[in-house]
Amino acid sequence: MSTAPTVEPTGNWEFQVLARNCPSRPTLEHVAGRWGTLIFLVLREDPKRFSELRRAVDGINEKALSQSLRALERDGFVARHASDGYPSRVEYSLTELGASTAELLHRLVAHVEERMPEVLLAQSAYDEEHRTER
Amino acid sequence: MSTAPTVEPTGNWEFQVLARNCPSRPTLEHVAGRWGTLIFLVLREDPKRFSELRRAVDGINEKALSQSLRALERDGFVARHASDGYPSRVEYSLTELGASTAELLHRLVAHVEERMPEVLLAQSAYDEEHRTER
Repeated sequence: MSTAPTVEPTGNWEFQVLARNCPSRPTLEHVAGRWGTLIFLVLREDPKRFSELRRAVDGINEKALSQSLRALERDGFVARHASDGYPSRVEYSLTELGASTAELLHRLVAHVEERMPEVLLAQSAYDEEHRTER
Repeated sequence: MSTAPTVEPTGNWEFQVLARNCPSRPTLEHVAGRWGTLIFLVLREDPKRFSELRRAVDGINEKALSQSLRALERDGFVARHASDGYPSRVEYSLTELGASTAELLHRLVAHVEERMPEVLLAQSAYDEEHRTER
């Protein structure tokens, strides 16, 4: 990573996402970015296999899913379990940190979904206003 | 927009971000995406002028800020006020919808910031494990 953290993990350093070089910023992007949020929502229900995740997160491709899972595993939000046996069954689940984060994401998403009628009306009004301006 | 909503704003349609064509998905990306979250955090404190926002969101450039503000204004999260007088003073503030969304984002960010020591330890452990594997 080009923005390597230069902080002590156990100091009393204040993490602040508004600061460009704070290591919390890439982590927030993994959590709240394009695919991260959707992966959290799906894993919040149950552990899932890669192929199940891929079906549940409509529109994600294999590369984006494996990159996102790797970032979330590295950050400690997601755990990867490979079972014994052949073929080995690989499952992804949320850690305790992942589960607590997923609850907050779920509330945010539920709020946005619930208020979408208002958002669509705002979009129509904005487009109408900016059409007549030009 | 290439993904024009095909739903009735006032129907009893269920919005579902996991569905690729749901209009809630681009809105969630405006809210939770790379810059959206940081803009919400800053406006949550006070209305701000463009130049104040640009300074507060460390690392954002002018183009990204104006695109993000336009998307958030169109969705109904942000209001833009131009004062009378010369030169006109333009300020951005959160609407009621924006303020309620900002509260949920703030809780999410506070949680991530608070748990960053654990995230950094997880990252070190992951890197250590994957270094020795290769």
